[in-house]
Amino acid sequence: MPPRIYLAGPEVFLPDPLAMGARKAALCRKYGFEGVFPLDASLDLTGLSKLEQASRISSANEGLMRGCNAVIANLTPFRGVSMDSGTAFEVGFMRALGRPVFGYTNVTAGYHERADLYRRATPGLPDADGPDIDIENFDCAENLMIEAAILAGGGQVVRTAVSRGQEMRDLAGFEACLVQARAAFHPGPQ
Amino acid sequence: MPPRIYLAGPEVFLPDPLAMGARKAALCRKYGFEGVFPLDASLDLTGLSKLEQASRISSANEGLMRGCNAVIANLTPFRGVSMDSGTAFEVGFMRALGRPVFGYTNVTAGYHERADLYRRATPGLPDADGPDIDIENFDCAENLMIEAAILAGGGQVVRTAVSRGQEMRDLAGFEACLVQARAAFHPGPQ
Repeated sequence: MPPRIYLAGPEVFLPDPLAMGARKAALCRKYGFEGVFPLDASLDLTGLSKLEQASRISSANEGLMRGCNAVIANLTPFRGVSMDSGTAFEVGFMRALGRPVFGYTNVTAGYHERADLYRRATPGLPDADGPDIDIENFDCAENLMIEAAILAGGGQVVRTAVSRGQEMRDLAGFEACLVQARAAFHPGPQ
Repeated sequence: MPPRIYLAGPEVFLPDPLAMGARKAALCRKYGFEGVFPLDASLDLTGLSKLEQASRISSANEGLMRGCNAVIANLTPFRGVSMDSGTAFEVGFMRALGRPVFGYTNVTAGYHERADLYRRATPGLPDADGPDIDIENFDCAENLMIEAAILAGGGQVVRTAVSRGQEMRDLAGFEACLVQARAAFHPGPQ
């Protein structure tokens, strides 16, 4: 049985998420892993309220994560300075379980540079985004809890410059994470 | 020994974070808990590179979380549509450990409304924030993984309308989370 990798990221919100899941799973196989995409669980949500649907999906995803040996997370900024919050949750979840975390972003600018740009581009922001709030500066691509979790598991955040419009679709950084995962799970000459 | 609550949120970036930690800790005592603020660990970071500092801080925070019985997270949007990514990481971390998660936000608009507003206010966004990316719509304040984790632990996200400029400082929602935590940890008449 190949090690299983949970495929965390906002790709679930793409117009054709299953196609992206299939692309990632195919790359996983190439490197000796089984990819597990959040939408792999087929759920019957009929008759449920929206909150009940949310709980059902969450429960399924948490179950998928517990069944995986590692996670590769897409850290690309999503609707603001930072990565998707659901993906950040999943990185923390897997880290707490002691599973290695790998991550990539398709924006090369670091967290400090992005937050500073956001602040200067959008004056008059509410308090939480206001000018007296410190911007952490640790040479990280993301909040230090994310990046340090990746480092602690033997990974390194992969930053890739991609063509405009391909931020959600370019998988070169994802594949670089698979190289890291292979070195962790299948050490020795490749 | 009172149950210990990890105080997750971007308040660590305030100009005087320790004052906020002290305010939160005082409220925790009022409800029969010990509050644990991320900056409670006193760390010597001299001589370390930025990435080494990040790893040292992360390791300390992870240790503090493992020593806590629950978490109360500030979900207020931070530098974009969503909450602070480090806080999202910590919510996932505590959820994976099976500790109850409580959460509050000082912005009442739900996730879908905020993301839709962001998209309409800022046309020409890069791919990850572009118009063909689905906006989840589950009546949640945040990504469903966050909100469902709170529901699963018996909590409910508290949304509070606060005065402009007080998004990072108003603690009414935090105190409402303490009421929820007291009901979970100290059931019976108060």
